[in-house]
Amino acid sequence: MTLPSYLEGSWRTGAGKGTPVADAVTGEIVTRVTSEGLDLAAAVAYARRTGLASLGELTFPQRAAALKAAALALQERKQELYDLSARAGATRRDAAVDVDGGIGTALVYASLARKGLPDHTLIVEDDPIPLGKGGTFAGRHVLTTPRGISLQINAFNFPVWGMLEKLAPALLAGLPTIVKPATPTAYIAAQAVRIIAGTLPPGAIQLVAGGVPGLLDLLGGQDHIGFTGSAATAARLRADPAVTRRSARFNAEADSLNCSVLGPDAVPGEPEFDLFADALVTEMTVKAGQKCTAIRRAFVPAHLMDAVSEAVEARLARVVVGAPGAEGVTMGALVGLAQRDDVRAAVARLTGAREAGSIVYGDPHKVEVVGADAERGAFLSPLLLRADDVDRPEPHEVEAFGPVSTLMPYRGIPELHELIARGEGSLAGSVVSHDTDFVRQVVLGAAAHHGRLLVLDRDSAGESTGHGTPMPQLVHGGPGRAGGGEEEGGLRAVHAHLQRTALQGGPEILDAIVNRDMQTGEQR
Amino acid sequence: MTLPSYLEGSWRTGAGKGTPVADAVTGEIVTRVTSEGLDLAAAVAYARRTGLASLGELTFPQRAAALKAAALALQERKQELYDLSARAGATRRDAAVDVDGGIGTALVYASLARKGLPDHTLIVEDDPIPLGKGGTFAGRHVLTTPRGISLQINAFNFPVWGMLEKLAPALLAGLPTIVKPATPTAYIAAQAVRIIAGTLPPGAIQLVAGGVPGLLDLLGGQDHIGFTGSAATAARLRADPAVTRRSARFNAEADSLNCSVLGPDAVPGEPEFDLFADALVTEMTVKAGQKCTAIRRAFVPAHLMDAVSEAVEARLARVVVGAPGAEGVTMGALVGLAQRDDVRAAVARLTGAREAGSIVYGDPHKVEVVGADAERGAFLSPLLLRADDVDRPEPHEVEAFGPVSTLMPYRGIPELHELIARGEGSLAGSVVSHDTDFVRQVVLGAAAHHGRLLVLDRDSAGESTGHGTPMPQLVHGGPGRAGGGEEEGGLRAVHAHLQRTALQGGPEILDAIVNRDMQTGEQR
Repeated sequence: MTLPSYLEGSWRTGAGKGTPVADAVTGEIVTRVTSEGLDLAAAVAYARRTGLASLGELTFPQRAAALKAAALALQERKQELYDLSARAGATRRDAAVDVDGGIGTALVYASLARKGLPDHTLIVEDDPIPLGKGGTFAGRHVLTTPRGISLQINAFNFPVWGMLEKLAPALLAGLPTIVKPATPTAYIAAQAVRIIAGTLPPGAIQLVAGGVPGLLDLLGGQDHIGFTGSAATAARLRADPAVTRRSARFNAEADSLNCSVLGPDAVPGEPEFDLFADALVTEMTVKAGQKCTAIRRAFVPAHLMDAVSEAVEARLARVVVGAPGAEGVTMGALVGLAQRDDVRAAVARLTGAREAGSIVYGDPHKVEVVGADAERGAFLSPLLLRADDVDRPEPHEVEAFGPVSTLMPYRGIPELHELIARGEGSLAGSVVSHDTDFVRQVVLGAAAHHGRLLVLDRDSAGESTGHGTPMPQLVHGGPGRAGGGEEEGGLRAVHAHLQRTALQGGPEILDAIVNRDMQTGEQR
Repeated sequence: MTLPSYLEGSWRTGAGKGTPVADAVTGEIVTRVTSEGLDLAAAVAYARRTGLASLGELTFPQRAAALKAAALALQERKQELYDLSARAGATRRDAAVDVDGGIGTALVYASLARKGLPDHTLIVEDDPIPLGKGGTFAGRHVLTTPRGISLQINAFNFPVWGMLEKLAPALLAGLPTIVKPATPTAYIAAQAVRIIAGTLPPGAIQLVAGGVPGLLDLLGGQDHIGFTGSAATAARLRADPAVTRRSARFNAEADSLNCSVLGPDAVPGEPEFDLFADALVTEMTVKAGQKCTAIRRAFVPAHLMDAVSEAVEARLARVVVGAPGAEGVTMGALVGLAQRDDVRAAVARLTGAREAGSIVYGDPHKVEVVGADAERGAFLSPLLLRADDVDRPEPHEVEAFGPVSTLMPYRGIPELHELIARGEGSLAGSVVSHDTDFVRQVVLGAAAHHGRLLVLDRDSAGESTGHGTPMPQLVHGGPGRAGGGEEEGGLRAVHAHLQRTALQGGPEILDAIVNRDMQTGEQR
């Protein structure tokens, strides 16, 4: 019943009772999670010794081949992951976002590395930069693998994608990874590790199910910590001496108060009006709204508030909540009862004050459920809120990490820019409009507050990947409340795991250092 | 007698007695530094309002022109800065590193921006990345100016260069700057600001002489904090909620235990032997060794220890310590008596334990001084230490921030790599050798621990800029103990002040957003 951890190349079970993890749909105990008694220091040492060495023997394309093999192994056995995901409340559509999204991300990274990185273990960034008039002295930058590890601390909502989007650049960069999955879905991440472990070089991946007490004490300036989760936990981790004193690299991706903006041109009847309403409902219901990128603040021209509200309500009325796989179900459960409590508490804050938001669709304490028990499972109705007083702090600060969005009116672009900025930094935003001038002004004003901005209109809707979906080719992260970090972005994420060093000297010796043929010679 | 601050476009004097700053040579009080009663919140608001707006009206080349004008204004009046620098203990050679180095850095940045940045206020990083087979949906990355400020917190040793190397990229990025100089040399930074303030757009620069209590409370995810100084202060700043909670960008450049390596080929009689000894003495004596990049650990093949020691001692014997400008003086004073106390205390730690280092040249408590009083001025003899037991922690951990270096023996490349790594991350390292294989192996093993590595040999020595000199074209910073940050590196530093945002949508709307002509149209 206890979920084992994958350490030093074998599966080991922690001691003690552990934390029980319940099935999100039935409430039955799926597993228990504990790392008690596991030797995490030995795991770190194993990563530094065995992992670094085995990855260090491979060039970038060889690492890419290992990554591709891992992705294909998952592809082969993804049904296992779908089945486990259902126990965490995920419908098949939800699981595809996580599992297929993760596999796709790994494959894109394998392809980018194969095409874009040298058959070498280091990257030369530039041609020699002359630093003297005689041409005898120059500088150039190289990126090399730190003598460290990558610790990834993941959120519960994407146990597979979240692991793979961090694993891919770390692996390509030659850094061994230790995965610390979130407890509620650790069993899904562990199964994915079980599937891929054999495809990766020894020591390239380990997984700790449970807490990691003392682990950060072992990390320093050569190590990388990648975190996805709440802003509060990001702040706590970032204050650790591993980061503040020893300068471990720390990248945070925190959930944020993402917005979507409807243009004034997108009146009922225009395609963008429907695109906006559809996108909002999609973001509210995929993963039951448990997405860092989901739309929390929907900004609508004041005179369109009623029309939008009605359109969204009509769509929400067609959402069928229930057990993943049950007849007609389009939205699953939250990951657990504690998560539902959190969302209810946040909704209470969002609607508690007289002038703050009110609920225009759904009841946080009542939902009709297909194929399961509404109370034993972590079910929640989608909840559409409306906050007409946009000066209230709550809708810009309180995140209900579930199927919850708030409609808010705006009057003109200056006010809109101000409202967007009040999110204090977001992962993703969208502008839904077919008015080029409007789109341009909103995007240019909002860009500094966002890691990603989607323009949605009739021209691109057919191929659009949507508001909430990070793409491996594009940066994922955002300023301020979103954590101030940057993941993905194609090869940028690989570069971010490497150490950049400026080399200076005569052009010939610089060539000799970075040239692989000469380097291979040295190994004779 | 109180040094004024430059706030909201005018010079304002703090209240109270302030901190007295003594002349490093004579001990006379030069000025008093206090920010008591100054309205720092108003200064931040002024930067956000006036500074952002005035810089936002300029394109990159226009900002580059302003930067160049500032550099030329300094060039015109640099004698004023030399004169003040002498009061801080700096010889003309020292002042040139700071003043001319700073001017040169600003000019290089102005040139890089003029040639390498668009006539626009944003940077488009890439061509559209197709995200669908039909070509109707794509992504691309833009860099835009955050709605924030740049706070620079500087070290005492380079009041002009340290300010300009941070100001240049911030200004080009469109961020208004608030300078917080180190108290001991704040009067030099203030004079530089006095010279350039009129050449810059309103609000682009402010300076606070004295403490900045509460200032970090006003900063958040759109702001940038650039710090240069001790590792301990870097850690304290990085633990501030501005960074941990609100994700202000934080870049630290901390002094480190930089090393220089002599190759086994560089026996007495070879040019590299002399280059090594010369470089070590240069790094010990320029700025009286008060440089974050100075060589603290000199690694020498075991069998060459005595020869190197003798060669360095002979050179140190020719160093003339004394008042800047006095006859024959080649090394000035430390910045102040407190700094000398710190260096003496560090030397005591480095030589205190029986097996730790011993002093082979100089006396920390006695020095012959030309043109000044050895005790009233902050004079110190250059001190060459020797630590034959390389396993001791002290020489790898204790930094004496003055004219102090330690010779240490190594036996073979694996031990050398281990010793280098024990510095826990450095700004700059150098390898002095004419053996290509040796150089390559040392550099590749040391790269991940360094922000910059210099190869010094007979081929490039004539044009070499030396171990200790950061170049604006190359990154300056380093992992771990060196702060984990990155400054300069050409336009990389400008990019690092901008927010990267992935834009997604149809190719036409993406073009319309990033195309300057259309953007200008919007301002009608």
